[in-house]
Amino acid sequence: MPTSTPSVTKPLGFRAAAGTCGIKPSGSSDLAMIVCDHPATAAAMFTTNAVVGAPVTIGRNHIKGGKLRAIVCNAGIANVATGKRGIQNAIRMCTTLADAVGCDPYDVLPTSTGVIGHALPIEKITTGITQLVPRLTRTARMDTATARAIMTTDTKPKSALRTIKLNGKSVHIGGIAKGSGMIAPNMATMLVFITTDVDITTAPLRKALRDAVNTDASLNRISVDTDTSTSDTTAILASGLAGNRRITSASEAGYARFGEALTDLCQDLAYQVIADGEGAEHVIRVIVEGAKSQAQALTCARAIADSPLVKTAVHGTDPNWGRIAAAAGRSGATVDPTKMTIRIGDTTVYRKAEPANFNAGKTSRLMKKPEVVIRVSLGLGQGRVEVLGCDLSREYVTINADYHT
Amino acid sequence: MPTSTPSVTKPLGFRAAAGTCGIKPSGSSDLAMIVCDHPATAAAMFTTNAVVGAPVTIGRNHIKGGKLRAIVCNAGIANVATGKRGIQNAIRMCTTLADAVGCDPYDVLPTSTGVIGHALPIEKITTGITQLVPRLTRTARMDTATARAIMTTDTKPKSALRTIKLNGKSVHIGGIAKGSGMIAPNMATMLVFITTDVDITTAPLRKALRDAVNTDASLNRISVDTDTSTSDTTAILASGLAGNRRITSASEAGYARFGEALTDLCQDLAYQVIADGEGAEHVIRVIVEGAKSQAQALTCARAIADSPLVKTAVHGTDPNWGRIAAAAGRSGATVDPTKMTIRIGDTTVYRKAEPANFNAGKTSRLMKKPEVVIRVSLGLGQGRVEVLGCDLSREYVTINADYHT
Repeated sequence: MPTSTPSVTKPLGFRAAAGTCGIKPSGSSDLAMIVCDHPATAAAMFTTNAVVGAPVTIGRNHIKGGKLRAIVCNAGIANVATGKRGIQNAIRMCTTLADAVGCDPYDVLPTSTGVIGHALPIEKITTGITQLVPRLTRTARMDTATARAIMTTDTKPKSALRTIKLNGKSVHIGGIAKGSGMIAPNMATMLVFITTDVDITTAPLRKALRDAVNTDASLNRISVDTDTSTSDTTAILASGLAGNRRITSASEAGYARFGEALTDLCQDLAYQVIADGEGAEHVIRVIVEGAKSQAQALTCARAIADSPLVKTAVHGTDPNWGRIAAAAGRSGATVDPTKMTIRIGDTTVYRKAEPANFNAGKTSRLMKKPEVVIRVSLGLGQGRVEVLGCDLSREYVTINADYHT
Repeated sequence: MPTSTPSVTKPLGFRAAAGTCGIKPSGSSDLAMIVCDHPATAAAMFTTNAVVGAPVTIGRNHIKGGKLRAIVCNAGIANVATGKRGIQNAIRMCTTLADAVGCDPYDVLPTSTGVIGHALPIEKITTGITQLVPRLTRTARMDTATARAIMTTDTKPKSALRTIKLNGKSVHIGGIAKGSGMIAPNMATMLVFITTDVDITTAPLRKALRDAVNTDASLNRISVDTDTSTSDTTAILASGLAGNRRITSASEAGYARFGEALTDLCQDLAYQVIADGEGAEHVIRVIVEGAKSQAQALTCARAIADSPLVKTAVHGTDPNWGRIAAAAGRSGATVDPTKMTIRIGDTTVYRKAEPANFNAGKTSRLMKKPEVVIRVSLGLGQGRVEVLGCDLSREYVTINADYHT
């Protein structure tokens, strides 16, 4: 029996429910909802893929006003490449939940994750939604059940909670996430739902989410397999019930404290996603520093984290600095081999165009740890970025060669 | 006993030799040379990686004059990240061969392929070079031996030959290649040595090589694993002994005929490289047409060919058009899902934002063939590109996780 951890219903004003409506062939839970009892200030970020699922099309529209009451999610079928019927089905998920909780359909964010190109079994889903609404509740157990119901190839539910004090009041931020494959920069097949009871207006909430997602080792700095999904969505709802002085701009002290906690939560969820990367045995933390610019640091770090040869080397716990140097060199970032230093963990493996003198056997043994840190110092400027990736295993191939459409 | 196929010594004026100097732990042949009896017009293209091996640094210098007499290659150690000593060793390979055949060291192109970061056993190599020179010969058997001596993780030697008539004279173009992993756009861990007896000046030869390499399904349009190597080199030497009217510009009829044959040869070698991709069971031919521009077609085609999810889907013979659509969508090329059509082989699997009605089982069975064609029609313009990739297998992971530095 898994432990229950409080997350999305810990902030005041939120309830959640999860259950099985019959989409997943396994019979596992596949329907979840998070509802705020009051109109919540809201912000969301979506995939940058030009091909998007119907829920993203609808969601982009619904988030425009900066208010939401609920998120509904089904797992098992992604409602992508489903034409007009897909759009209608995404809307029906919203109207069904809106009717049941008494809000406007435009206040519902619809999300779906799973296989592409199949129509949703919409009757099952709407029946499921209607049945779940009376069961909306606030318990750590339901939070975990909700995190579990949105899973696809994930092996474990992902959740996090942060609590800070603002003006003497407790402010909670809770989040759940799913994602394991098709995970890449610029949002991944990743759904992240965050709730908070902070009192904040839309503009600073949007900025806080954007900054939290785009920071080092956070949700837009991770990659399992370079494949950005068609359904990625990260959304945050703020009930405003914490009683803090309302945050109305990014220049306020309260904003900084809230933003920091939100960032920390997003990094926590990002780490959980990568650690559960399909077939992954290691998290690879790639730190590129001394790049000519921040953008170049990111380009270089992503090339290293995405390199199949680096990923397989880490899988084999091989301190193969040559592949790291080659990936940096081909990344497009300015790289001068005579100024570059590469470290694996605390071991310098390459310095100034030549391999360093190091104990390969010992370094290989140190690479058996769950996290392997690759640090590349380019020696050219101030750009510094941290991204998270994972190793490439036979298991990844097995999962993705056998997951038939 | 493998069949012997004529290639680099078929054009008049060229001899080759190959043997074992003791670099490869396996004891396989690891040293090869191709020598022209006369100064040959020459052109070469090198990796775009910012981190390059010492032979590339020296080679770029030696090719500047547009003349070469010889190519020397060792396999097993790449002479990359080896500092000043690496440069000295690359030069010693040139001087040793130059002394033995009686030419200028600047007329020798040095190449090395294999593991990175180790110093060449230069005494073994120079001894080997001296011993091989008396064995330089013109036979199909030696051509195959030469193709075999430059192999690393390749499972078979790669060679090709084209013969055309120019002004009533037979013109031969022969080529050998090695490459199996760290193969990616903009040259790969790929060495390609081409000889020809055509009479041509430097400028049109350079253009012909560049065009032949950058054409559809040719050497710069292939990818095994997105990792561009530090050592990629494609070189061509033209002895001028065929007796054709000398080609002095790209506007001549002879140029067009020669260029076409050279392109055909490069595509042949490119196909052999991809078909021998590490762990690969299928060649994936990705055709993107109807893109807004040629550059966008290339961006889109490469994203599809490089996608781990597309590669694993092909490995599992899964007609997973969703992953193809998602890769196209995230590629950065302009994509409108409502105008896009995706075909696998002759089967339309996706049309205008929805899956097509097709027999998945039948399409899956058709995907068991050695070559799988993915054709994406974007419906937006005239850009059309063809790239070659291969599937991603457990075997690829095994090869690259276990190949220790």
